[in-house]
Amino acid sequence: MKNELTIKLGIKYPIIQAPMAGGPTTSRLVAAVSNAGGLGTIGAGYMSPEQIRKQIREVKALTNDPFGVNLFVPSPYTVVEEQILAAKGHLQPIKDKLQVKEEEVQMTGYLQDMEVFHQQVNVVMEEKVPVCSFTFGIPEKDVLSSFKENSIMTIGTATTVQEAIMVQEAGMDAVVVQGSEAGGHRGSFIENASDSLVGLMALLPQAADRVGIPVIAAGGIMDGRGLAAAQLLGAKAVQMGTAFLTCEESGAAEIYKEAILMAFEDQTALTKAFSGKMARGIVNQYMIDMKPYEDQLPPYPVQNELTKVIRKEAAVQKNQNYVSLWSGQSPRLARSLNATTLIQMIITEAEKAGRMLFEDFFHKD
Amino acid sequence: MKNELTIKLGIKYPIIQAPMAGGPTTSRLVAAVSNAGGLGTIGAGYMSPEQIRKQIREVKALTNDPFGVNLFVPSPYTVVEEQILAAKGHLQPIKDKLQVKEEEVQMTGYLQDMEVFHQQVNVVMEEKVPVCSFTFGIPEKDVLSSFKENSIMTIGTATTVQEAIMVQEAGMDAVVVQGSEAGGHRGSFIENASDSLVGLMALLPQAADRVGIPVIAAGGIMDGRGLAAAQLLGAKAVQMGTAFLTCEESGAAEIYKEAILMAFEDQTALTKAFSGKMARGIVNQYMIDMKPYEDQLPPYPVQNELTKVIRKEAAVQKNQNYVSLWSGQSPRLARSLNATTLIQMIITEAEKAGRMLFEDFFHKD
Repeated sequence: MKNELTIKLGIKYPIIQAPMAGGPTTSRLVAAVSNAGGLGTIGAGYMSPEQIRKQIREVKALTNDPFGVNLFVPSPYTVVEEQILAAKGHLQPIKDKLQVKEEEVQMTGYLQDMEVFHQQVNVVMEEKVPVCSFTFGIPEKDVLSSFKENSIMTIGTATTVQEAIMVQEAGMDAVVVQGSEAGGHRGSFIENASDSLVGLMALLPQAADRVGIPVIAAGGIMDGRGLAAAQLLGAKAVQMGTAFLTCEESGAAEIYKEAILMAFEDQTALTKAFSGKMARGIVNQYMIDMKPYEDQLPPYPVQNELTKVIRKEAAVQKNQNYVSLWSGQSPRLARSLNATTLIQMIITEAEKAGRMLFEDFFHKD
Repeated sequence: MKNELTIKLGIKYPIIQAPMAGGPTTSRLVAAVSNAGGLGTIGAGYMSPEQIRKQIREVKALTNDPFGVNLFVPSPYTVVEEQILAAKGHLQPIKDKLQVKEEEVQMTGYLQDMEVFHQQVNVVMEEKVPVCSFTFGIPEKDVLSSFKENSIMTIGTATTVQEAIMVQEAGMDAVVVQGSEAGGHRGSFIENASDSLVGLMALLPQAADRVGIPVIAAGGIMDGRGLAAAQLLGAKAVQMGTAFLTCEESGAAEIYKEAILMAFEDQTALTKAFSGKMARGIVNQYMIDMKPYEDQLPPYPVQNELTKVIRKEAAVQKNQNYVSLWSGQSPRLARSLNATTLIQMIITEAEKAGRMLFEDFFHKD
């Protein structure tokens, strides 16, 4: 299963653990994936530069194998005071129900977000992390050239062929193409791309035909059948989130893991109500309550800040109704294993599937 | 590529040409697909019993190989006079623009729809067509047992695992699982299934794990890579619509074929505005114009009747803006070939992909 991408990444198997910001990607999970021959990724989008440095050092202490860090590329946004007031109004009944203590919400603004982003980038470079992937956009030229000078591989995220082309044209080393099946945030960054919702079966071959850099498949892949199918469709590796989220080493709360292990494929939906950006999760009370206001909510990261206190308190109360339950569309395939076993099983399954297909095509006819 | 399904269907290759009601499935196309080793299907959903009999006989004159007929299972609906008036109001500016002559719209009602459906069923049985597939529901027990007694294979359509289970429990011989990528109507028949939009990469393995009857994969598959990938994910065959729509033998209008050949993967969307049921097509002026009213339109088949005159006249005027341009999410993979060549290429591509995967897994490591 070696190819130009796995060789460049220095990994044995074409399996990347998706960056899941906000808790799941513990140092134990990241290191376990890398130790097992895949590429672990720290989901650092919401982390401060100091937190990122701390976790990078933790992971380094647990593995000598390559791993990655994922960052969110900030984009400009407008803060409309009435929009925030309206959103707060919609959130108040939930806050009352959970009896949350009101916290002062700090809005930072694009310029400050960019400052933090550059600090995050500097940490990744100073710590010489082998791989840095990006979501929600393409970093500026200077940032990408610094990574190149430091021999750090860069990976972009695309939800349409056009976005994949832009990632390639920016000079990045590989691109994750994220199908509509994917759990969590859609990594879209050009207008309307987030709404296009192209399924991976369609997106992957069309992107692989069109870009020259290695394509990494993401969205709904949970096992070896999915890995082998993605490779047939042109992927040089797969990126799996939900599959690793229910692993023992994952930092996801138990109620969250249970929700995925119990869910069906038709029980997820896309929502902007948690963060202001489109993301896929298991439908819960919060998503139902906020659905009527979906289009009037403030943009990311404003809405994300406004809902933080609710998600935090609901997690403490172990209340599934008001936390984000990000999940892809294949929860029926979720397994409760350790990451090492999961990776070994995926490889065994992929080889079995590949062998069966070959025999079907060339020996039985 | 033989398996229990292809053997039972009596076809050489696991490729089914999707029923595309309303014109594309000419007798030439259906026969060409069957003669080339696949299963051609007459998209008979909108046809009268007499038209169906005529086309079945035409196809029989062109091929000795098995082929199928697809029927729409009627479901009850409510006619709300104000809803129809409102819809007519929204359609009027378009009628004015196209200068269509007003036609008397005939609303039939569920009971009469069922009567027609039973007549369609009788024609398929009398003509001893080898395969009958169904969209939008599961026929009553009596109908299915008559097919069984006549040794006619029945195939259902599902967009969720639950629907696939229901198709199996009804005693049908196989089930098409239709991913969100698919062009044309979503075959959903239980509440909310149409909105679940599960991508094929996720839907297929979860359905294949859960049902015992052969699963046929549909949605975004256009080439041999897609065929091989679908087989890895558990499909015993694929059903391809858009791929055959641009074939020479297809009855689709030239402007429609051109629209697909020019489209990108992110230019389709789901709409109820043509028929009252959710379907995927290339976004055009009509879909944009009707978007604001999407949720207030009359149900299928009422809306379908109301828009018929517009679609007809726009087709005559070769005006892409007001016809339905049904397409799956892989239009970049569309080819302008004859069906025989297309099928041969798909098989060659699938074998090549399968061989490369096998070598990648077992010879290079």
